[in-house]
Amino acid sequence: MTKRKLFIPVLLGTSRQGRESEKVAKLIYDHISKSPEIETQLFDPRVMHLPQDDEDGGIKEQNKEWKDAIIRADGLIIVTPEYNHAFPGSLKRALDLLLPEYIHKAVGLVGVSAGGWGGVRAVEHLVQVVRELGLAVTFSDLYFPKVQDAFDDQGKPKDEKVYKRIDDFMTELIWMAKALKWGRENLPSKYHKK
Amino acid sequence: MTKRKLFIPVLLGTSRQGRESEKVAKLIYDHISKSPEIETQLFDPRVMHLPQDDEDGGIKEQNKEWKDAIIRADGLIIVTPEYNHAFPGSLKRALDLLLPEYIHKAVGLVGVSAGGWGGVRAVEHLVQVVRELGLAVTFSDLYFPKVQDAFDDQGKPKDEKVYKRIDDFMTELIWMAKALKWGRENLPSKYHKK
Amino acid sequence: MTKRKLFIPVLLGTSRQGRESEKVAKLIYDHISKSPEIETQLFDPRVMHLPQDDEDGGIKEQNKEWKDAIIRADGLIIVTPEYNHAFPGSLKRALDLLLPEYIHKAVGLVGVSAGGWGGVRAVEHLVQVVRELGLAVTFSDLYFPKVQDAFDDQGKPKDEKVYKRIDDFMTELIWMAKALKWGRENLPSKYHKK
Amino acid sequence: MTKRKLFIPVLLGTSRQGRESEKVAKLIYDHISKSPEIETQLFDPRVMHLPQDDEDGGIKEQNKEWKDAIIRADGLIIVTPEYNHAFPGSLKRALDLLLPEYIHKAVGLVGVSAGGWGGVRAVEHLVQVVRELGLAVTFSDLYFPKVQDAFDDQGKPKDEKVYKRIDDFMTELIWMAKALKWGRENLPSKYHKK
Repeated sequence: MTKRKLFIPVLLGTSRQGRESEKVAKLIYDHISKSPEIETQLFDPRVMHLPQDDEDGGIKEQNKEWKDAIIRADGLIIVTPEYNHAFPGSLKRALDLLLPEYIHKAVGLVGVSAGGWGGVRAVEHLVQVVRELGLAVTFSDLYFPKVQDAFDDQGKPKDEKVYKRIDDFMTELIWMAKALKWGRENLPSKYHKK
Repeated sequence: MTKRKLFIPVLLGTSRQGRESEKVAKLIYDHISKSPEIETQLFDPRVMHLPQDDEDGGIKEQNKEWKDAIIRADGLIIVTPEYNHAFPGSLKRALDLLLPEYIHKAVGLVGVSAGGWGGVRAVEHLVQVVRELGLAVTFSDLYFPKVQDAFDDQGKPKDEKVYKRIDDFMTELIWMAKALKWGRENLPSKYHKK
Repeated sequence: MTKRKLFIPVLLGTSRQGRESEKVAKLIYDHISKSPEIETQLFDPRVMHLPQDDEDGGIKEQNKEWKDAIIRADGLIIVTPEYNHAFPGSLKRALDLLLPEYIHKAVGLVGVSAGGWGGVRAVEHLVQVVRELGLAVTFSDLYFPKVQDAFDDQGKPKDEKVYKRIDDFMTELIWMAKALKWGRENLPSKYHKK
Repeated sequence: MTKRKLFIPVLLGTSRQGRESEKVAKLIYDHISKSPEIETQLFDPRVMHLPQDDEDGGIKEQNKEWKDAIIRADGLIIVTPEYNHAFPGSLKRALDLLLPEYIHKAVGLVGVSAGGWGGVRAVEHLVQVVRELGLAVTFSDLYFPKVQDAFDDQGKPKDEKVYKRIDDFMTELIWMAKALKWGRENLPSKYHKK
């Protein structure tokens, strides 16, 4: 295995006003940025160009950064709130922009909710979507129920134990990312670009 | 029960370029428009204002027609293609715009796919979403697999049997719409606006 | 509408050793038994005859009580624990025993879990299954997370507020049961036995 | 990587009378048995001991063969029919018998249906269940819609192209099984038995 860091971008799953999940995405981004093993990047659907359900030529150009990141990625972290028992529309649009770029890479899912169930229903829907995209999803999710109570005014998490939870989540994501990276480098597949 | 027609709008579920499901939505809209029992209206996410995952004041104004339609509706028909085993982002955005307006009304689901499975996976995801919205979903779906082969150059369906299938779908949707209409008019509920 | 009580049986969703959801099913059964408006009956998969995925003649005879109950029912309450993000096998077997008997009746779902998420994932799977069975599912679920901490040694709920939660759940289920009962009695359908 | 064959058992997902999916399971079992790369074994829920939703000591003994197979397995093939938009109860029972034994192994899903949709809804439910079990599911499913027309009286498939479809399905499953096998042998994890 090459020595370079694993590249694992973070995708925030909503563009909604007053979105609390932005705090969660930044928390994870900040925390894993400190890891010597990981390189990361934060993607925000507000900044991405998502006017319609798909791309035409012009939009493709505008989302080149997202495409390049997924091509280069070893894994992906998706932070999704739950709206009406499913993921937000902007998250689906962002994911639907690409296809072969995702194949044989790892993904870890993070659920966020205002209520008590942590966004598990949005995560379960995503499990089915990312599978179809060719991503291999880990089984160690990270959940933030009652997210509005989880951060202080400076955006710091009130409970320090969250760092341990993120570390456990990342341990499994890194395991899967490394196994698949070995696979991409050693096991031929029609899905891998030559 | 009052004598007025049932109002059952049709929501097209995608804004994608070259969307085939537009033909399906128009076919259903045209066919049910001829029914003496039904009043309908076609909603297109390209025309609706869906720049972000939710509304601010200005957007609310722009989607007033959608809101008024659902307030007045007895039922709803959703025509969804399937992208990566789920519904398109624009459909989710459109549905997430409202909430109490949907309660105790009927919904029928129509799946569309380029492949052979008819969009059943998008429909199954929608079953869970519309339930949370308070809609009562019928169990007689309508499916259009291999939709690209289903219409001629003038947008007419190649198979005349489709009209019988739409009628069967509508029979069940009308049954549910009437039962719930009676309920809304005769059974008190905290969910009904006074 | 006839004056007879609504008949709403309760189906317990598991036969597992040490099942905690039995306490939940009994709690609901006992509470709604006191309602002057409702007649109920508790079904336990341990007592039902579920040796294989379906019935042959002999099994049909043994599950006649279940069949007769659903034929007579106006609604159904399903109490399901969550095993590995889905419902137990015995619950699916019990539901799969019948088909036309369910049509145009109401169902309310109750989730139970040892962990913190209340069994919402099992409930979401059930939403799709009961819809196919022709049942109309309410959107006011009842959840019992950390169920092992919810009852005292005598099987009494530790938190008295649970009765208010059951009442709210029943209010919505009764609304739907009455609307559909009116429909079954007043709106013709090929699905109703003459 | 050691030279031994990959061990990939096949689990038939139903005990129903007249089950057509048995033909599919046997077809796949027979075909992959000929591969020099694969060792396999067929598990039938009729033979497994599945009287209740879980095990007590005695049952564990009776399902030792299943447990030993999953401990030794590199991957798993699940053949599921679709009953009422979900998997059969006996399949869920069989899967729920074990837990840590599944972790970091590959699984491929095969859907079977009498109707036209191939059992995709049962497969989508399974995607969520096997993920929780720690299995990594491939994205190249195998489907048998209208299964009652797919085999002749001798149980041979009528369409020879099915072998190519099985090979494609296996190519992806073997890719994933090998990547994860390398992972289990080279990447430490708290989930691996020492």
